[in-house]
Amino acid sequence: MDLTSRPPRADASRNRNHLLATARTMLTDHGPDRITMDALADCSGLGKGTVFRHFGTRSGIFQALLDDNERAFQEGVLSGPPPLGPGASPRERLIAYGQARIRFLLEHHDIARAALDGRQPAPAGSATPLSRIHIRMLLTQLDLGPVDLDLLAIQLTAALDGPLLLYLSKSELDATTCPTEQRLTTGWQNLIHRICHP
Amino acid sequence: MDLTSRPPRADASRNRNHLLATARTMLTDHGPDRITMDALADCSGLGKGTVFRHFGTRSGIFQALLDDNERAFQEGVLSGPPPLGPGASPRERLIAYGQARIRFLLEHHDIARAALDGRQPAPAGSATPLSRIHIRMLLTQLDLGPVDLDLLAIQLTAALDGPLLLYLSKSELDATTCPTEQRLTTGWQNLIHRICHP
Repeated sequence: MDLTSRPPRADASRNRNHLLATARTMLTDHGPDRITMDALADCSGLGKGTVFRHFGTRSGIFQALLDDNERAFQEGVLSGPPPLGPGASPRERLIAYGQARIRFLLEHHDIARAALDGRQPAPAGSATPLSRIHIRMLLTQLDLGPVDLDLLAIQLTAALDGPLLLYLSKSELDATTCPTEQRLTTGWQNLIHRICHP
Repeated sequence: MDLTSRPPRADASRNRNHLLATARTMLTDHGPDRITMDALADCSGLGKGTVFRHFGTRSGIFQALLDDNERAFQEGVLSGPPPLGPGASPRERLIAYGQARIRFLLEHHDIARAALDGRQPAPAGSATPLSRIHIRMLLTQLDLGPVDLDLLAIQLTAALDGPLLLYLSKSELDATTCPTEQRLTTGWQNLIHRICHP
């Protein structure tokens, strides 16, 4: 039996849930800046070693929060109603996936940004592999001719997440003239139409 | 006179150059992990306050190193020979820009990654505004019809930088079957052809 892959023991799992719940409370009360490894240990009443074992780094705390939030989103993608879930054409599903991902990143923007940490090896914190895998799968179902589909999937993942994770400043995100969600979802739809032109 | 925009005094500028030179030596000798605000103060013989004033955060040190490296690259883009510099068609210049940017990011990959820090406001450390501005300018010269050019420029900037900054793991970057530079430059060229189809 591979000991490294055995399920976490009950107390470890309980500690993890308690740490995540504490982090969520801290986030609601004070925003992301106050969350550090030390502060999470203090507020949770658990040792620094426990925090370290569960998350490794400060950005690891945010990555764990994001993973937690992502579960419902993933279920919608894998088995929810079309066009996000199965049953629509691959092009419709690509567009719906981008729209849902943009909503998700806007909703959890603080956490997604705080999960970014260049000191950790890539793929970076909030660069979920789900996007890359799902977009790759949908591209396979389109007839795009000879093309490096793996790389195209990474480029599209970056074009989808990058504006929110790296490039748009706070004032651009808060723009009132053209709300960010509408602008990004329209932009994603246009990009997919350009990529998939017959 | 706006005091905030006056040129740095000679000693401030000397200190900055000394700090950057020290950081480069540390980088060559030990890699990026050992560079911290404290270690840079120690090795340079300057105070922690001075390091803080010049760079703000650890990732700010790497951002300053990257900016420094970028100067030669920028000159090639703005006034070098075509197709990177002026004189070629916008489509050729877009492709040449991406190829040069990929080479630049591969050459300075450690620094570009270490400049990423989600605790800082976006645009993120290594997400240079040059790409966004230059790609935007070249897109204007193409006849793309009605499209949100600002957003398309950000999406393409993300598709160009994102694979290297966020998504490709160390083992993917070191792939020997299809070298990363060739794969990324071909992928960028293909993406531009798809975007700019007549």
